Amino acid sequence: MEDQSPKPIRCKAAVCRAAGEPLTVEEVVVDPPKAYEIRIKIICTSLCHTDITFWQAKVAPVFPRILGHEAYGVVESVGEHVEGFAAGDAVVPTFLGQCDGCGSCASEQNNLCAAVPFVIGPGMRRDGTTRFRDAQGNPLHDLLAVSSFSEYTVVDVNQVVKIGPDVPPKLACLLSCGASTGVGAAWRLAKVEPGSSVAIFGLGSVGLAVAQGAKMCGASKIIGVDLNPDKQEIGKSFGVTDFVNPSQLGKNSVREAILEMTGGGVDYSFECIGVSSVMTDAFRSTKMGKGKTIVLGLGKDTDQLCLPSLELLFGRCVMGSLFGGTKPKTDIPILAEKCMNGELELDGLVTHEVGLPEINTAFDQLMQGKSLRCIVWMDKDK
Amino acid sequence: MEDQSPKPIRCKAAVCRAAGEPLTVEEVVVDPPKAYEIRIKIICTSLCHTDITFWQAKVAPVFPRILGHEAYGVVESVGEHVEGFAAGDAVVPTFLGQCDGCGSCASEQNNLCAAVPFVIGPGMRRDGTTRFRDAQGNPLHDLLAVSSFSEYTVVDVNQVVKIGPDVPPKLACLLSCGASTGVGAAWRLAKVEPGSSVAIFGLGSVGLAVAQGAKMCGASKIIGVDLNPDKQEIGKSFGVTDFVNPSQLGKNSVREAILEMTGGGVDYSFECIGVSSVMTDAFRSTKMGKGKTIVLGLGKDTDQLCLPSLELLFGRCVMGSLFGGTKPKTDIPILAEKCMNGELELDGLVTHEVGLPEINTAFDQLMQGKSLRCIVWMDKDK
Repeated sequence: MEDQSPKPIRCKAAVCRAAGEPLTVEEVVVDPPKAYEIRIKIICTSLCHTDITFWQAKVAPVFPRILGHEAYGVVESVGEHVEGFAAGDAVVPTFLGQCDGCGSCASEQNNLCAAVPFVIGPGMRRDGTTRFRDAQGNPLHDLLAVSSFSEYTVVDVNQVVKIGPDVPPKLACLLSCGASTGVGAAWRLAKVEPGSSVAIFGLGSVGLAVAQGAKMCGASKIIGVDLNPDKQEIGKSFGVTDFVNPSQLGKNSVREAILEMTGGGVDYSFECIGVSSVMTDAFRSTKMGKGKTIVLGLGKDTDQLCLPSLELLFGRCVMGSLFGGTKPKTDIPILAEKCMNGELELDGLVTHEVGLPEINTAFDQLMQGKSLRCIVWMDKDK
Repeated sequence: MEDQSPKPIRCKAAVCRAAGEPLTVEEVVVDPPKAYEIRIKIICTSLCHTDITFWQAKVAPVFPRILGHEAYGVVESVGEHVEGFAAGDAVVPTFLGQCDGCGSCASEQNNLCAAVPFVIGPGMRRDGTTRFRDAQGNPLHDLLAVSSFSEYTVVDVNQVVKIGPDVPPKLACLLSCGASTGVGAAWRLAKVEPGSSVAIFGLGSVGLAVAQGAKMCGASKIIGVDLNPDKQEIGKSFGVTDFVNPSQLGKNSVREAILEMTGGGVDYSFECIGVSSVMTDAFRSTKMGKGKTIVLGLGKDTDQLCLPSLELLFGRCVMGSLFGGTKPKTDIPILAEKCMNGELELDGLVTHEVGLPEINTAFDQLMQGKSLRCIVWMDKDK
């Protein structure tokens, strides 16, 4: 009788062999899923700034490594004890897990599952090992236990979200990280109120998704802040009502401009860049008495956020969160629904599409600010 | 026909003539209340650390000045356009105003009245002038537009809270600032949930009031942190369940001790000292995913609160507030009721009582950590 259990798969993956160097598309071996794990055939993946942060070795540097954490795929096989998933299911992997059984998952205010905790370093979350080897049999590290720059990957069942087969692949891919983070930051974390004012520092994909989230929540003034003048028009299509370019302000600071535009500060500010000084600006641009600042950007892991403590005492609040405070399994399907019924418009985030062999061009475009999201198709050139 | 309008009053006040110097009890002249102002006969006042911060000229230094902002009294006379107050009403003045007509007062999340905004510098809030002169006719600055270290003072109607005549004077006085700030921080600002864990850095009056507030909200673990070993027993009587003395930890940090005691951090931490490094410790002692840090302490106005931004991203939040997020006119009567029906026990905060001529001993005791609240009675020695 033939052994029906999953076997190692040989496939292509983009491997990062050293910090900041171009990825090499290589043949790799992807091990079968262990208990509580799912092997996914990736249909498409996209490049997020967080991939670049790890690629540049600003955080948790280990190489060689398979990057990528924003993706859409179908289940290829499942390990022992995996319930509710079967081969062929449409799924998105997520760097954040959700078990729905622990105290954190039960709490509305906590999206960091305690059962299989998030770690920033490499390794599958239950045993710390990798499922990847190169053609020579040397282990390849993963990224955030997702590693989607590969035709196949293995992900913990807690980190796999099942979505309807009618959700378009590109949309599903966007919701796997950046778009959910941005929309969620406005919707779940800040809980933007109707009629309120918002400032968004950095109109990349996450910032533009914040704008869509704020618009969905009914914000009446959405101020975009970006050094790139092209973002003024791009921002409009995502709901940005006002634009500030710090390089064109003359002697005034961004904070002064925002305070003037809002009669004393915005209700909510979002930092979507990951620069300490911008976090401070975002904080100081909020209204006294109730201003909330939401930090979404990831810089170096030694970065400090410094705030004048007296200004904090004037009724302000600073919040940070992974995944915009959303719970992946609960919220990604809700967001997909909102996109499909037109409450949210995220299609414009996809500015480029390439095949896996061209993945390095996606890095170049994002680094140069020329792209928002570049979808990398696994079978585009097959 | 005799002029019935209020006249200037000559009375005693404790005047601070220079930073850090003993107050001098002098005869002063208190002008009649202008429009929207109330002249109050102070019955008792108490000394708060914030008075010391201003006395030491760490914030907004101007002298000579009449300090004091925590008090109980009765209305002596009212200016034009004052409604709802009459001579003889029992009142507490507060440094924070509430008009109940502006957008901030209408918002549940904002306790900084926008109609007559709080300012940290001296001067009545509507016209910036003072109602005090010394015996030689030279102007004396006020403190936070309250200046309660005087037998009479003039306060804006927005900053006067009417309370029931059955509220004991000492309790009313406590609720005028510190006790409301502490209880409110747990109750209104952090919104401490039943069964949660709390760490309080600094068991002075505000910290002990936080403990009572957290207990009232149903917190199950209340960890007090203080360098003074006597605070272990004192803390117990306010609801503190566990005690950490940083000087007795050996090589471990306070953060490590708290993480160990709670299996990963507290749900809420409160900084009640006003020291930047303690704020950072308080922040880093909270639980990932949902930890809230509430900053209540006031240090120097140049102090920076520095946080590792990566740790903020792990689902943490830092909030600051004046008056613990409470609205004085709404919440002080509620807190008085809770004290009188036994839900809150704040009597233990009063450790000393003196007359106005002994006010400098109150400063010494508080500076040396020997007192919590010293009630200064205006007529004790008459």
